[in-house]
Amino acid sequence: MLVSGRSRLLTALPQTQKWPFQPSRDMRLVQFQAPHLVGPHLGLETGNGGGVINLNAFDPTLPKTMTQFLEQGEATLSVARRALAAQLPVLPRSEVTFLAPVTRPDKVVCVGMNYVDHCKELNMPVPKEPIIFSKFASSIVGAYDEVVLPPESQEVDWEVELAVVIGKKGKHIKATDAMAHVAGFTVAHDVSARDWLTRRNGKQWLLGKTFDTFCPLGPALVTKDSVADPHNLKICCRVNGEVVQSSNTNQMVFKTEELIAWVSQFVTFYPGDVILTGTPPGVGVFRKPPVFLKKGDEVQCEIEELGVIINKVV
Amino acid sequence: MLVSGRSRLLTALPQTQKWPFQPSRDMRLVQFQAPHLVGPHLGLETGNGGGVINLNAFDPTLPKTMTQFLEQGEATLSVARRALAAQLPVLPRSEVTFLAPVTRPDKVVCVGMNYVDHCKELNMPVPKEPIIFSKFASSIVGAYDEVVLPPESQEVDWEVELAVVIGKKGKHIKATDAMAHVAGFTVAHDVSARDWLTRRNGKQWLLGKTFDTFCPLGPALVTKDSVADPHNLKICCRVNGEVVQSSNTNQMVFKTEELIAWVSQFVTFYPGDVILTGTPPGVGVFRKPPVFLKKGDEVQCEIEELGVIINKVV
Repeated sequence: MLVSGRSRLLTALPQTQKWPFQPSRDMRLVQFQAPHLVGPHLGLETGNGGGVINLNAFDPTLPKTMTQFLEQGEATLSVARRALAAQLPVLPRSEVTFLAPVTRPDKVVCVGMNYVDHCKELNMPVPKEPIIFSKFASSIVGAYDEVVLPPESQEVDWEVELAVVIGKKGKHIKATDAMAHVAGFTVAHDVSARDWLTRRNGKQWLLGKTFDTFCPLGPALVTKDSVADPHNLKICCRVNGEVVQSSNTNQMVFKTEELIAWVSQFVTFYPGDVILTGTPPGVGVFRKPPVFLKKGDEVQCEIEELGVIINKVV
Repeated sequence: MLVSGRSRLLTALPQTQKWPFQPSRDMRLVQFQAPHLVGPHLGLETGNGGGVINLNAFDPTLPKTMTQFLEQGEATLSVARRALAAQLPVLPRSEVTFLAPVTRPDKVVCVGMNYVDHCKELNMPVPKEPIIFSKFASSIVGAYDEVVLPPESQEVDWEVELAVVIGKKGKHIKATDAMAHVAGFTVAHDVSARDWLTRRNGKQWLLGKTFDTFCPLGPALVTKDSVADPHNLKICCRVNGEVVQSSNTNQMVFKTEELIAWVSQFVTFYPGDVILTGTPPGVGVFRKPPVFLKKGDEVQCEIEELGVIINKVV
């Protein structure tokens, strides 16, 4: 049983947060709000855990949403690169509210059973082709927003996942071309209502995956050129400080390129589309006895190089 | 077997198309394009099968997308009502291209097994609660667009459905309040790849339902006050002129109000969200032998008072 406040660590915490914060040349795009600004803005997180540069102040012609920013491709990315190279004012982290780096995408694609070590844990064969389901965009919330425990479920569980953000439209994309369609990566929490997944809704997973607030994302869209190898990143989930999932994205069965090739057989990808690439072992439902989230819990989902999202369960 | 060009009718065609066209006071909102206009525009179809009034020309302050139009609620609806009462120029139907009445909604919610007569046909019990799945918004096409038969499926089937379009944001909506959240109704074709529904993707229905072009919608969003009773409308599907589905929306197990109440337990509805409310009996997969769509077929999905969508299979 996970006890609130208990800090026994099942594995060492990945040391991905540099503290005190060191500025970085990595491009970490964010959507944020601040008290002195009207509506959402686009920004740059100045390294993992750092303050925020207001991109819309740097260039007022830039769009204010990530999807529109990505739709403009290299034109807007080059503006962001110039901003990164300039000496610009940095808003302290305490003065901004982080929205999800992408909001209202055309689609949130999710992948089931996509970690080798998770399949071993389940004593299940590794899938021969990806298993695809979805969440509605309305389930997306920001990196530090609350996850609302719905009264309709008694079995809400955690799942840390690497999320891929699409940067370029495409259909029937070859695996060898797939990375050209990727804008970057972020951290996702694929919150899951097990009772609705396994025993309700004719076993269609959608409802159990798509309650409002069931898709925290962030804090930043880290562009692909800022990530050394997206398929060799430590990935971990902590509940009330206790490590409950700890693996590496090298355990993914189908990698980013294969997932994009597979799904683009069916659908056109658009800039801003998000792919949640599956979760490693350690979810609550397979513990003995099973453990589920309860009000007051704090879930931290962290991926090396990308950052950590922290969501309180209310 | 359905033979192209064969016109034996299994049931009489519903006489919903008034011809020659009679102007109507019904509000039939459309998204359209025309050669002399730049980009999509909002319009009014002047009755079922009639020409189009350009709402953006009548009031240039109106938004050009249906989702934005609906977001403004009564303010924009009252402009459309004034346009309907005025003597305005009508673009002939031959000069416009009908887009889907809603494009890029936050969600396309679908309901399975929702016709009593369809359950009887399957010899299955009527579901005790709605079975909910989804399509991606990227599958939406216009009323007369082509449905592209994907090489990845050998079993593409037809399903005519009544579609509900949400007009007002809401969560935990009571059935008794649900109609206040409805903007209106339109005709949908829930094109379905049976092989992907039943034998692939871990039996998650998403992929088999969401190939590009698998969600023709239209031609108009007929506002709720223009529909006498959405749950007493003849509904029919014809393939190459032959009636293959013929029922009435009074056969729906869960009506519009119950569906909105059910789904809004899980998610917030936004203006423009679409609910496909299930299909009556007569789909191809349950014929003996089964019949599937092939290149060159023409599918007509028609609902009384709402109109007909005609999609060629290519």
